[in-house]
Amino acid sequence: MIYADNAATTRMSGAAIETMLHHFRETFGNPSSLYTTGQKAKEVLEEAREQIAGVIGVTPGEIIFTSGGSEADNQAILTAAKLGEKNGKKHIISTAFEHHAVLHTLNRLKEDGFEITLLDVHTNGLVVPSEVEAAIREDTCLVTIMYANNEIGTIQPIREIGEICRKHGVLFHTDAVQAVGHIPVNAQTDHFDMLSASAHKFHGPKGVGFLYVRKGIRVTNLIEGGAQEKGRRAGTENVAGIAAMACALTDAVSAMDESARKLIAKRDRLIAGLQQIPHSELNGDAAKRLPGNVNFCFEGIEGESLLLLLDDKGIQASSGSACTSGSLDPSHVLLAIGRVHDVAHGSLRLSIGEDISDEDVDEIIRSVKEVVEYLRSFSPIWRDLVAGKKPFIL
Amino acid sequence: MIYADNAATTRMSGAAIETMLHHFRETFGNPSSLYTTGQKAKEVLEEAREQIAGVIGVTPGEIIFTSGGSEADNQAILTAAKLGEKNGKKHIISTAFEHHAVLHTLNRLKEDGFEITLLDVHTNGLVVPSEVEAAIREDTCLVTIMYANNEIGTIQPIREIGEICRKHGVLFHTDAVQAVGHIPVNAQTDHFDMLSASAHKFHGPKGVGFLYVRKGIRVTNLIEGGAQEKGRRAGTENVAGIAAMACALTDAVSAMDESARKLIAKRDRLIAGLQQIPHSELNGDAAKRLPGNVNFCFEGIEGESLLLLLDDKGIQASSGSACTSGSLDPSHVLLAIGRVHDVAHGSLRLSIGEDISDEDVDEIIRSVKEVVEYLRSFSPIWRDLVAGKKPFIL
Repeated sequence: MIYADNAATTRMSGAAIETMLHHFRETFGNPSSLYTTGQKAKEVLEEAREQIAGVIGVTPGEIIFTSGGSEADNQAILTAAKLGEKNGKKHIISTAFEHHAVLHTLNRLKEDGFEITLLDVHTNGLVVPSEVEAAIREDTCLVTIMYANNEIGTIQPIREIGEICRKHGVLFHTDAVQAVGHIPVNAQTDHFDMLSASAHKFHGPKGVGFLYVRKGIRVTNLIEGGAQEKGRRAGTENVAGIAAMACALTDAVSAMDESARKLIAKRDRLIAGLQQIPHSELNGDAAKRLPGNVNFCFEGIEGESLLLLLDDKGIQASSGSACTSGSLDPSHVLLAIGRVHDVAHGSLRLSIGEDISDEDVDEIIRSVKEVVEYLRSFSPIWRDLVAGKKPFIL
Repeated sequence: MIYADNAATTRMSGAAIETMLHHFRETFGNPSSLYTTGQKAKEVLEEAREQIAGVIGVTPGEIIFTSGGSEADNQAILTAAKLGEKNGKKHIISTAFEHHAVLHTLNRLKEDGFEITLLDVHTNGLVVPSEVEAAIREDTCLVTIMYANNEIGTIQPIREIGEICRKHGVLFHTDAVQAVGHIPVNAQTDHFDMLSASAHKFHGPKGVGFLYVRKGIRVTNLIEGGAQEKGRRAGTENVAGIAAMACALTDAVSAMDESARKLIAKRDRLIAGLQQIPHSELNGDAAKRLPGNVNFCFEGIEGESLLLLLDDKGIQASSGSACTSGSLDPSHVLLAIGRVHDVAHGSLRLSIGEDISDEDVDEIIRSVKEVVEYLRSFSPIWRDLVAGKKPFIL
């Protein structure tokens, strides 16, 4: 079995599992409790907070633990919206290819009278910083742009966008769920005010994530209740999960350079192999992309069948985001970069991990070629294309 | 070490740990993914949903997995508020001794023009159903009353309240975080429309819980994003945690009768022992309380010192809710049942678990007696009481 869907979720690392197991057994107390067992849990929690803060170059008090990336995105946007509302600023800038945790939250704000500008991400899947600047208005309270796209892996010019936001005094949030643990992310150099991350994207457990909020920004709670997280997120802290997240992140970051170097070589081998398939095209910029991300469109086929047949061959991949699979609509990300419906339907995302070998890469190339050819052999769209009844796009 | 703070959190059961470990290793896929690993995770998720639904007498589609009890409380109240708002109904009935996940969420709704009636819980810590009925108005959109109180353990007349709400066509939510897994909870007989629960209160993992919402009630998302949980709660599902929650709950429920019988005997032995301490009093009804809950006030002492000295003796307990420890205010629950500030400050909650022996119970009684006596020996309040400068209350 070749698992090539690490953007959907990753296998937990052995060290993260061990950490979790250890704390299940040894640190079961409630961190809010005054007695020894509770205080021990509190220490574990604060140690994890320090580790995570260190990794992204912030102070521990700026880290709020959440149940994952979606919750963090929701809370970041709510926080900015509440601050904006107070100051009569109800305009938010984002992009058309954000994760739904951002887009749907923004949609909800529209009901409360917020105006949302969604920037173009162009055919290369990249936001142009000057277009961010041009979109900023007097009443802009937030720019929220993802660090790296979850489908096509393009890495945005976060630093430039951050500088522009800071210059104009506009809050900048980044959904860094795909970036943290995979590429260098640093609050000092990137100038973001808020950042969301999720543990299960970097070999930590599911159900845990964090939100960074720069000191001085008044946080609005998404979950009200007890005084956990300095009153910024209620609910008994998932101590073991948080410790495992810190462990997984620390490990990912210390192996990052080496791991990225190897992954990029494999990614590019995979891209080169798949580009040999006629009427196929890589989605998103070839260079400014996550080390493990490959995303292709194949003309004349239907993505879901491609996935199921690849699964039969032991290759696990996706057509786009796992969060939207099951939907019959083509990926909003591929539409955002200008793919037409038919082409967007024939997409394949391969997000490879550190465990993949060159042989696996070649096996994927061989299998995708076979399956694409097979599917095209009885595709009516393909027949029309070949017969010249419709023009090829790719 | 005697752990007597199971209302704050419980030690994970061996079976729950094993379940989690198994799924970390074997079921790491994203349940939204189409390929085998993803679909296997989806099956685990749906099996857990069936188990949990079965336990509380509802259908699987009525269970929404959350990150815990606080999130579930927030979402339940938000759901009712949105429905109420739509129908011009902006009045909510609750009680003064709810968990802060309920009270703080209600406070926030006040800002949006909701009117909140907090019912009295009387000196025995019980809501009177006829008072619920009397409080219902034309514009009441929700009654939210906890199943069992987290501090004093009193079990509310949920069935009667549920019947009243149904009769008047008002939604009824219950925070059942302390009840589920400890006493029989059933949607058919209790007539609740929504219910919140948390895994770590019944030997499951932290960071997982669930919200039951009766079929036909339009749910409002607290966390927007992907289409997980049928679009009602975004975020990649914590598969291993959810499976461990189902395992822990199933085990807790099958052992419930036997376990409650034993616990009640120990609880009452503990109550009888502590009642021998002069100027002490049990908080909350002696019979209508959770099998493992003991909560006392001791006149003339300060709860925090009591806890720290008990901790030195190897006994881990709390003064009230872990979610509010660290706060200098006396428990809002004890104030709600009419305790004056000074007395409420001298509280002790012992929430015992299945692992406790009669010897442990006697050890607790002995230690509490010693510590109370010691603290009183240099308490200025106690000196005043003994000298007759102030009247004894208890």
